[in-house]
Amino acid sequence: MDNSPPPPSALNNFRILYLVTQLVGITIIILVSCWIGIHLNGLGWSARPSVQFNWHPLLMSVGMIFLYGNSILIYRGFRYARKKPLKITHATIHGAAFIFTVVALVAVFDSHNLAKPNPIPNMYTLHSWVGLSAVILFSLQYVFGFAAYLFPGVREQLRASYMPVHVFFGVAGFVMAIAAALLGLLEKAIFSVKDYSALPPQAVLINTIGMLYIVYGGLVVFLVTERQYKRHPLPEDVMLLTHSASVGSS
Amino acid sequence: MDNSPPPPSALNNFRILYLVTQLVGITIIILVSCWIGIHLNGLGWSARPSVQFNWHPLLMSVGMIFLYGNSILIYRGFRYARKKPLKITHATIHGAAFIFTVVALVAVFDSHNLAKPNPIPNMYTLHSWVGLSAVILFSLQYVFGFAAYLFPGVREQLRASYMPVHVFFGVAGFVMAIAAALLGLLEKAIFSVKDYSALPPQAVLINTIGMLYIVYGGLVVFLVTERQYKRHPLPEDVMLLTHSASVGSS
Repeated sequence: MDNSPPPPSALNNFRILYLVTQLVGITIIILVSCWIGIHLNGLGWSARPSVQFNWHPLLMSVGMIFLYGNSILIYRGFRYARKKPLKITHATIHGAAFIFTVVALVAVFDSHNLAKPNPIPNMYTLHSWVGLSAVILFSLQYVFGFAAYLFPGVREQLRASYMPVHVFFGVAGFVMAIAAALLGLLEKAIFSVKDYSALPPQAVLINTIGMLYIVYGGLVVFLVTERQYKRHPLPEDVMLLTHSASVGSS
Repeated sequence: MDNSPPPPSALNNFRILYLVTQLVGITIIILVSCWIGIHLNGLGWSARPSVQFNWHPLLMSVGMIFLYGNSILIYRGFRYARKKPLKITHATIHGAAFIFTVVALVAVFDSHNLAKPNPIPNMYTLHSWVGLSAVILFSLQYVFGFAAYLFPGVREQLRASYMPVHVFFGVAGFVMAIAAALLGLLEKAIFSVKDYSALPPQAVLINTIGMLYIVYGGLVVFLVTERQYKRHPLPEDVMLLTHSASVGSS
């Protein structure tokens, strides 16, 4: 494995792209909020099922898109922090993303089940199949990641050999979340934008949010897979690794 | 860079996953054909615009999904072939994918413009925005890839420094094509499956095709990014490289 630290020019590029990624992510959340505020009658809970739905795109955009992306970027974004706090931050941000996701799921199931005069069926569109698969993959990753990297006493060798699997399925779950978000936007547009085909302002807004999801996803995946941007272990990490390996094998 | 050849066990895994990938890809084409044959009244050209549309999902599945995936896998799938024939095969399969894509686009635009009694508007859904972006990215990749790697006399240094960009946007375009295909399936399901929410056989078929797109996409991206599976230059390639470098700099 190539263990030479990245050249300063690579880190400058990383910083610029990291900043752009954050700006795109925040823009997505602002635009989704505008969409809900201007076109979807704002937010509410189970007393108003039709607007309770609106928490779904908002909280999924925050949780499964923005926080998920930021959580997988944390090691590279804060490369000079020590490994242990980074791992805890990674797990905490993912934990927050999971909570947002659960509330977002409650919102959509409630908005279907409590709809008047008749309930709306659940889990029939391709959006729901892809989205639920992404959430299940995310949850499994969380459980296995927690057991492998935050549970004390796991052998270093096992941790190291599980790492490529954790990284691959972590990125795969993120890309699936982006795909699910695109599908969700499309079905909401078809179901609720009157005259989608004439591209009224709401339709342009929805399509634009979708294109930004792709830009955000592309940037996150690039930043997290480009080898030049890899975080290299600090001397303190190596000490801790040696210590935890000796504990693990004792 | 790590230039040691992959261990035999890694290549065995590669072969199994490569075979599974092909089976999933062929299953997708068969299922899309069944969908068109059983539920969408088969195929036709501009005299019957409503079935002319059906070429669109079929040819896109063959071109932008199956052939695109196979073309980016060609170096790893045929690792003992020489570089030059592999490059030509890569360009040829991509060329075929491009032709399928153009005919698929003609089919959908025709089916909209010739629809009776009124034409159907074009390019308004998120599917069309994402899909056209994927096609444009694919086309740009083709032009730049051709210029960099098949045009004689380009300096080896330029070729090498463009390679990571070519690979990243190649995979990105493929993932966008998968996303566009999912969006296309969803909108076709909403527009034309009566009672989609009751999950009739056609709806289950469409959703299943969508999930298989994701499996195919995930397998292709894994096989093409896993470092253990990388093709390593043959002695003949190195001779050719030296030759072409000396030609390029003369």
